[in-house]
Amino acid sequence: MANPSILILPGDGIGPEVMAEVKKIISWYGDKRELAFDVSEDLVGGAAYDVHGVPLADETMAKAQEVDAVLLGAVGGPKYDVLDFSVKPERGLLRLRKEMDLFANLRPAQCFDALADFSSLKKDVVAGLDIMIVRELTSGVYFGTPRGIFEENGERYGVNTQRYTESEIERVARSAFELAKRRGNKVCSMEKANVMESGILWREVVQRVHDEEYPEVELSHMYADNGAMQLVRWPKQFDVIVTDNLFGDILSDCAAMLTGSLGMLPSASLGAPMENGRPKAMYEPVHGSAPDIAGQGKANPIACILSFAMALRYSFDQGDEATRLEQAIEKVLADGVRTADLMGPEGGTPVSTAEMGDKIIAAL
Amino acid sequence: MANPSILILPGDGIGPEVMAEVKKIISWYGDKRELAFDVSEDLVGGAAYDVHGVPLADETMAKAQEVDAVLLGAVGGPKYDVLDFSVKPERGLLRLRKEMDLFANLRPAQCFDALADFSSLKKDVVAGLDIMIVRELTSGVYFGTPRGIFEENGERYGVNTQRYTESEIERVARSAFELAKRRGNKVCSMEKANVMESGILWREVVQRVHDEEYPEVELSHMYADNGAMQLVRWPKQFDVIVTDNLFGDILSDCAAMLTGSLGMLPSASLGAPMENGRPKAMYEPVHGSAPDIAGQGKANPIACILSFAMALRYSFDQGDEATRLEQAIEKVLADGVRTADLMGPEGGTPVSTAEMGDKIIAAL
Ligand SMILES: CC(C)[C@H](C(=O)O)[C@@H](O)C(=O)O
Ligand SMILES: CC(C)[C@H](C(=O)O)[C@@H](O)C(=O)O
Repeated sequence: MANPSILILPGDGIGPEVMAEVKKIISWYGDKRELAFDVSEDLVGGAAYDVHGVPLADETMAKAQEVDAVLLGAVGGPKYDVLDFSVKPERGLLRLRKEMDLFANLRPAQCFDALADFSSLKKDVVAGLDIMIVRELTSGVYFGTPRGIFEENGERYGVNTQRYTESEIERVARSAFELAKRRGNKVCSMEKANVMESGILWREVVQRVHDEEYPEVELSHMYADNGAMQLVRWPKQFDVIVTDNLFGDILSDCAAMLTGSLGMLPSASLGAPMENGRPKAMYEPVHGSAPDIAGQGKANPIACILSFAMALRYSFDQGDEATRLEQAIEKVLADGVRTADLMGPEGGTPVSTAEMGDKIIAAL
Repeated sequence: MANPSILILPGDGIGPEVMAEVKKIISWYGDKRELAFDVSEDLVGGAAYDVHGVPLADETMAKAQEVDAVLLGAVGGPKYDVLDFSVKPERGLLRLRKEMDLFANLRPAQCFDALADFSSLKKDVVAGLDIMIVRELTSGVYFGTPRGIFEENGERYGVNTQRYTESEIERVARSAFELAKRRGNKVCSMEKANVMESGILWREVVQRVHDEEYPEVELSHMYADNGAMQLVRWPKQFDVIVTDNLFGDILSDCAAMLTGSLGMLPSASLGAPMENGRPKAMYEPVHGSAPDIAGQGKANPIACILSFAMALRYSFDQGDEATRLEQAIEKVLADGVRTADLMGPEGGTPVSTAEMGDKIIAAL
């Protein structure tokens, strides 16, 4: 049988640096665990724009459709801020999400014991935190039409359209319930059904999927504004949160920041199963391209490595290896090994991006 | 000259209880400060539905248009959850906002020294926090059309429309810049210009209003997801935040919860100046109707009283009286007087809703 295939898209800023450590780990799995991958690499974001004049070339898109998993670093940077909306680095990312139909974006917000002090929240509020946000990723206001800037009565107006079909809501709801069954068995769905009809439909469909297919999972509904409050007040009340594309964007970032260590957070974007049974999938760290520290060996590669751990779990059916990789990272952190962003008042052993990668491999 | 007029809409749940304390304070101003108001009272929300079958009667709407300021308690409760979208308690509130054209919603997020321990955030992150969120309140996805639940290809879909005109953005931007001039002179505007054209127009218009009319105010732009993160990470970086209706709903609730004491936060919703020079205005506490504790004398009336202080400042040109009222509240808190929601591990003097009102009057 052919090796599973991975397309690596390092992207911009610190993307290539953190991805270099993932590549080391992938090689390690081939050498030491007989878990070999066919790895190819290509451009996305500003890096693709520089070469192709678009943030994702058609050939890259075609490759992404064929591999078992895409690993993406980060896109964007000040150099590209002046570009037209249609060719901004983000469009490359959004094209991948949309054309691969990656409808379920899994964003764990986990607080690592060794790093609980980094949070701006009190330690008892975040220590041991482990929630999973499932964000719908291919619809809603990100992709709805009509959209654009138009003119009427002598002035311009901007329009975007929030649009969700029943089947779009159903499938992401199922993803959330499936995940909950393997976790705390609890789903909280968030929308603004008190002011938006799309939220009314969202709530109704999530409830129906629950009643018909997952009656054993505990389901609650919350308005998204209250959701933001509750995340700040007492995040441990949540297990799995399911919400739409735009609310998910904001609430998952809010949840990410609760943990205090953005450099630690991975994500998985999953679509429908392919012929080989694996879901279409893209994995990426939650942090951005951090142009201010790019190229200096300062970036923390852990979020990107944890994204690869999610790939092991969700694409390659290697849940045990994923857990082992996560434990290796916890061990390295417990040993006090720290990239610059993790260096707190209590000190630790300062390491570069590459040294962090090496330490994690050593701990494996 | 006639006394300034106030329409009181206590609404549902704890609304009537907290408003009773505001009424005492209004009477006190008439008796002791020769600052008399013409006060009338009417129904909104579920209370209006029970009597009129709608959450805001036309006559009430007409009265609200004529007075100098509306004071609103809270709307909603489980009893009304089953009602059709069109007559839910919230629709009464939204109708007032829209028909009075209250485009600028001012939501201060302030942390009271005596209560800094209540926050889920570390004390140094929130102590002394004082930010003002200016939320656009009459447009965006709350009111845009088309909206509704429709059917196509054998399934339903939900639609809402985000729509902003240049002039809608201009006027709320001006409100934010004007406020900033009297505060820290700094405005941060939040949108998702990286994914929404309405956000591109928002950013451009805010920048233009700045450059042409308020070049002396410091202006920055931030994506709303990053805004949520930064609010959690280090909220003191902000002075005034200006954002649209939906982002403002979520971000202002997130900011409110940072302070840890929701029962303390007021809001003002302001429109264009009326003939007498006063802006159309409605004032309301940020907390909801809290049906679980309604009618038990447990509610904290401070948010509602602080909303009246905002009325003194923004509608009645009584900034000094507003400050005095705010100081009276701080004094009462510093003395350890506590409604149930403010009772922490360090103890204090437990008081009922009415006793809190009396203590504040005594401190005035
Ligand atoms: C970069 C941007 C387009 C993207 C989004 O808004 O979805 C990012 O914020 C994210 O959450 O992955
Ligand atoms: C009650 C509800 C309609 C309202 C809103 O969404 O605007 C509330 O959350 C608020 O922020 O005032």
